[in-house]
Amino acid sequence: MANSLQIGVLGAGRIGSLHTELLMTRVPGCTVAAVADVFPEPAEALAAKFGIPRVCSTLDELLSVDGLDAILVCSSTDTHEEAVCSAARRGIAVFCEKPLAVDIASIERMRSAVEQSDTILQVGFNRRFDPNYARLRTAIEGGEIGELHTVRLTSRDPEPPPIEYVRRSGGLFIDMMIHDLDMVRFLVGAEVSEIYTVAECRVDPAIAEAGDVDTAVVTLRFVDRTIATIENSRRAAFGYDQRAEIFGSGGNALTDNVYGNTAVLASESGIRRDVPLRFFLDRYIDSYVIELNAFASAVRNREAPAVDLIDGRESVVLAHAAKRSHETGLPVKLPEFRAAFGLSV
Amino acid sequence: MANSLQIGVLGAGRIGSLHTELLMTRVPGCTVAAVADVFPEPAEALAAKFGIPRVCSTLDELLSVDGLDAILVCSSTDTHEEAVCSAARRGIAVFCEKPLAVDIASIERMRSAVEQSDTILQVGFNRRFDPNYARLRTAIEGGEIGELHTVRLTSRDPEPPPIEYVRRSGGLFIDMMIHDLDMVRFLVGAEVSEIYTVAECRVDPAIAEAGDVDTAVVTLRFVDRTIATIENSRRAAFGYDQRAEIFGSGGNALTDNVYGNTAVLASESGIRRDVPLRFFLDRYIDSYVIELNAFASAVRNREAPAVDLIDGRESVVLAHAAKRSHETGLPVKLPEFRAAFGLSV
Amino acid sequence: MANSLQIGVLGAGRIGSLHTELLMTRVPGCTVAAVADVFPEPAEALAAKFGIPRVCSTLDELLSVDGLDAILVCSSTDTHEEAVCSAARRGIAVFCEKPLAVDIASIERMRSAVEQSDTILQVGFNRRFDPNYARLRTAIEGGEIGELHTVRLTSRDPEPPPIEYVRRSGGLFIDMMIHDLDMVRFLVGAEVSEIYTVAECRVDPAIAEAGDVDTAVVTLRFVDRTIATIENSRRAAFGYDQRAEIFGSGGNALTDNVYGNTAVLASESGIRRDVPLRFFLDRYIDSYVIELNAFASAVRNREAPAVDLIDGRESVVLAHAAKRSHETGLPVKLPEFRAAFGLSV
Amino acid sequence: MANSLQIGVLGAGRIGSLHTELLMTRVPGCTVAAVADVFPEPAEALAAKFGIPRVCSTLDELLSVDGLDAILVCSSTDTHEEAVCSAARRGIAVFCEKPLAVDIASIERMRSAVEQSDTILQVGFNRRFDPNYARLRTAIEGGEIGELHTVRLTSRDPEPPPIEYVRRSGGLFIDMMIHDLDMVRFLVGAEVSEIYTVAECRVDPAIAEAGDVDTAVVTLRFVDRTIATIENSRRAAFGYDQRAEIFGSGGNALTDNVYGNTAVLASESGIRRDVPLRFFLDRYIDSYVIELNAFASAVRNREAPAVDLIDGRESVVLAHAAKRSHETGLPVKLPEFRAAFGLSV
Repeated sequence: MANSLQIGVLGAGRIGSLHTELLMTRVPGCTVAAVADVFPEPAEALAAKFGIPRVCSTLDELLSVDGLDAILVCSSTDTHEEAVCSAARRGIAVFCEKPLAVDIASIERMRSAVEQSDTILQVGFNRRFDPNYARLRTAIEGGEIGELHTVRLTSRDPEPPPIEYVRRSGGLFIDMMIHDLDMVRFLVGAEVSEIYTVAECRVDPAIAEAGDVDTAVVTLRFVDRTIATIENSRRAAFGYDQRAEIFGSGGNALTDNVYGNTAVLASESGIRRDVPLRFFLDRYIDSYVIELNAFASAVRNREAPAVDLIDGRESVVLAHAAKRSHETGLPVKLPEFRAAFGLSV
Repeated sequence: MANSLQIGVLGAGRIGSLHTELLMTRVPGCTVAAVADVFPEPAEALAAKFGIPRVCSTLDELLSVDGLDAILVCSSTDTHEEAVCSAARRGIAVFCEKPLAVDIASIERMRSAVEQSDTILQVGFNRRFDPNYARLRTAIEGGEIGELHTVRLTSRDPEPPPIEYVRRSGGLFIDMMIHDLDMVRFLVGAEVSEIYTVAECRVDPAIAEAGDVDTAVVTLRFVDRTIATIENSRRAAFGYDQRAEIFGSGGNALTDNVYGNTAVLASESGIRRDVPLRFFLDRYIDSYVIELNAFASAVRNREAPAVDLIDGRESVVLAHAAKRSHETGLPVKLPEFRAAFGLSV
Repeated sequence: MANSLQIGVLGAGRIGSLHTELLMTRVPGCTVAAVADVFPEPAEALAAKFGIPRVCSTLDELLSVDGLDAILVCSSTDTHEEAVCSAARRGIAVFCEKPLAVDIASIERMRSAVEQSDTILQVGFNRRFDPNYARLRTAIEGGEIGELHTVRLTSRDPEPPPIEYVRRSGGLFIDMMIHDLDMVRFLVGAEVSEIYTVAECRVDPAIAEAGDVDTAVVTLRFVDRTIATIENSRRAAFGYDQRAEIFGSGGNALTDNVYGNTAVLASESGIRRDVPLRFFLDRYIDSYVIELNAFASAVRNREAPAVDLIDGRESVVLAHAAKRSHETGLPVKLPEFRAAFGLSV
Repeated sequence: MANSLQIGVLGAGRIGSLHTELLMTRVPGCTVAAVADVFPEPAEALAAKFGIPRVCSTLDELLSVDGLDAILVCSSTDTHEEAVCSAARRGIAVFCEKPLAVDIASIERMRSAVEQSDTILQVGFNRRFDPNYARLRTAIEGGEIGELHTVRLTSRDPEPPPIEYVRRSGGLFIDMMIHDLDMVRFLVGAEVSEIYTVAECRVDPAIAEAGDVDTAVVTLRFVDRTIATIENSRRAAFGYDQRAEIFGSGGNALTDNVYGNTAVLASESGIRRDVPLRFFLDRYIDSYVIELNAFASAVRNREAPAVDLIDGRESVVLAHAAKRSHETGLPVKLPEFRAAFGLSV
């Protein structure tokens, strides 16, 4: 297609491959012009599968591809800063996977780079585009539940990640709860003023040995007096448990998990249905498609991205604050916590 | 019926009238022998309606009724101690509405009186007998969700009580959340080690003026490492919102509200059903019937009551602790909090 | 209570006992003055249990009880005609269990007797008072689904009755489907013009040997062009399956079974809940209470009964027509079928 | 991709465009080599959109494309026979949309052509591949509901088609119910022995003027004694109503409609959710993807197609029989009806 957005994908791992496939098949007006990875094999395989003309081995090579409109940063977290800053300096739009970085200062440097460019950065919080969560946000915005009083998120994985990953990921608050910390901000539409964490290791003692927890309940106060709770577990026996509930002066709204079929079977032993979709790519596939279309649209129309750098930063700030509360056993006040990072928000 | 339990009802208000009706119609083997109230009219009306032979105007008169096996204490909270202690001294079994008292020392005096007698006291936490909550407890006991990790209670009233009531009731934690504080103990089957409260006045500013909150989220740690959250609101637009969820190593279980009918209507504007049962006597009627049958059975068979004095006391202790956390903004550790009341548990 | 309706119960079997208990405990303003049965033991036991002053051994004795306002005919079907006619002649109101009779001529004689009296007869189609079916009727009357196009009833028992009962009951169409044939008339609010039956014996070959079927699908056309289907089975593995669905120009409405609790359990093997209420007295208890209150109200206020003799007759006519269609394999046109019984409707 | 199946698409209308898009994006190992239509514009637009190298204006031109493995026949029903027979004679596999033809003799000629070739024909009954219906079939095959007794299909469109379409489509039984007639055969896994129709025009009098009905209830007996009912309406106010229920000796299973989100909103006016997916391409998108993958797999592995010519024929035979029953008001026995067409099954 003429005038197709030319996109480069950095990172040919699981999420990079997914985005590449979606861009090539379900995002009209986009073409993946190049894919880059430090490991040549997955990049070449991906390029072959979708007929992508260029395979690069470095960020620089990727950013030098002619006529590139945007890159997708799907590489490891520690490479995000360089990729974001380099692309921004060249005026190339960036879609960056979450978390932007574990280190707040690094995020602030990305913020400078993007703010000094005339391009945009969208952060990969795909769940905002999931039709279920989006419907809750619509309900709040449309006054369907009146003034918002409380929010409750349930987010449980089917299985803990490998212990090796737990060790280097920054732990549950950074690698898992970050999605929910972004989601409460998205739903509430205000900033958090205080956070309190109760967490345990209940799923697997190896997680405690790795210095992490696997079960956590976090309570958040917002500046507009909304109260939210997030409940995380590394393992739900029945699969992937992703639900939300909002309550306000006009009523309540809640979402359920997503199922592969609607069949309900009644027999002597009870009424049952199959477990919900287990794999996050199945559960959230629609959200990824909508997310990438939103990014393409923002790039094409030079609009503000749906999920911006501040969103990307605040989720990380809240994750650190949740962790701090867990460590101290006390509520953490966000204004003071942010100030310690030199942040003024 | 010969050998029917002879029961006296103290208090001919709403709950006393309900219990009288249920005892006379849905608790086989029980007879209400007398009803007492400081106001003669409601007591006489109640007696007339159900053919109760005696109407008394004082506690003493009631306790002197010949052959009395048990009394139901349905009078105002400040009269509980005298009623419980007097009945216990005479060896008359007691069913006492919640809260036993607002003052812990008063509850401890009741405990002495009951322990020194050879009779029993059952506290009126009817929700334990509700088939929905009871099913969750069965699921926990039967290992249906494995080892318990988290509990979540939602408990919202259709309307706030009159401001007059709010002023003298002890507030949301004492008069409303006490049900939920008992319920988490019932479900978890262990004691609380720490409690943390976030609360606001969102429903009606008059409640704040009366010194109370109307929206609260409480997080509880248990000694067995279970984590629970309770969410209360004085007003749910759609009626009475009473739900629970438990999660463990083997899965999840949740209950829904109770509806007056199952009809689901589909039209151009959506798929809808009628709001749930709104009035607590409708919603919990089965629990009251089962509760009174359990009490009658305990009295008849000289068994330990299903809800005992320690249950009655701990719910009050937790309510005070939740309130303290709200006032201080800090988590309250239960061992220290109990010690301050001279309690050793 | 002064001015309580004085009621006599004929038949101290299961349904007579139920009605007696409900009249004594859940129908204000009613007193069972006497109970009659050809077998003295159950009648005496019932009278003792509820403090009923008179036990009679014959219909005449019962009808002679002083000050009797109404009788409930809960005796075997072949005794209905005599009881109804005798009571009507004495001006005593009658509540008669279904079916009024298997023989249409017998029903017509009851109709004469009642029409010549100044009293009323209500037929025991309790399901009309069930809150679920009643909600569907309300939806139709209130235009919530627009103009009615189709109705669909599912009605399956937990277990077939004893073969002995199958042999003398008149078979599935008379003893089981009669409830549904009344229900479609109630929901549609019009008369049937044609009926077509497909039926099989699938549950138990002994039922075929007894000359009956156990699985049936009946299609009914109504004079207002509504189309209804009824599906019956003598055995649903998961218990008692009682559901309905209505569809019209404005939408759809459907009811679900009724459950003893709302708990939904998620585990590795699926999402499940307990089977619905299995015993018809549990499932339909509310409908019996409302039905008897409606009868008491009609007697007290001299109003037309909610379910009248024509309702009682038409259900039997339709049952015979459904059976005829099964036997001939052809649709049965109701006008001709009724004419053969000398009926003009 | 090397060794990709080369596929030609005949017909660039709505369903041809859909299949082309799906083949190009969601059926690995397939390439659309050419698209043909008598109207050049849509064919060229479709080719441009998906980078298809050839656009043809006739069937012959399409079938002459070098290396073609299969064609998809998405043109109007009256062109199916020629396309199927020509492709079969050249050994090219065929996927043909439903109905194969309105005329049974025409279908029999296709059958001859395919049987004399060494290639396959798959009929486009996509609903068999829908995860909901497929789950019911799995439940039956796996014995999850025991021996099958009854089946019930609900199939209602959001809106009637244009009157012009109603006039030439063959009417409700041929153009709409055909999906359900195939579905009952798929679920039951046996042939129909008798069919009975009750139908009306309730949605729009213009449909009656065009000689058709818009509301129909069909009862089917199967040779294995299963009984099925199909309910069709041309208009459901709430959108697209596609549900099924199966009942057997071991229990029941039913499917619900498919929703765009799971949010349930509670407010003063009731508990509600958004209407289900309204557009058939949204509702059944997964089924189309699975269907085409199944076809590609059958072609590649030279396996029998999942939906074969006999399936295609029997759905048409049943549609004619249902229409005949509607016209005569009598049940139609399938053995005799088939014999009249010279069919021996």
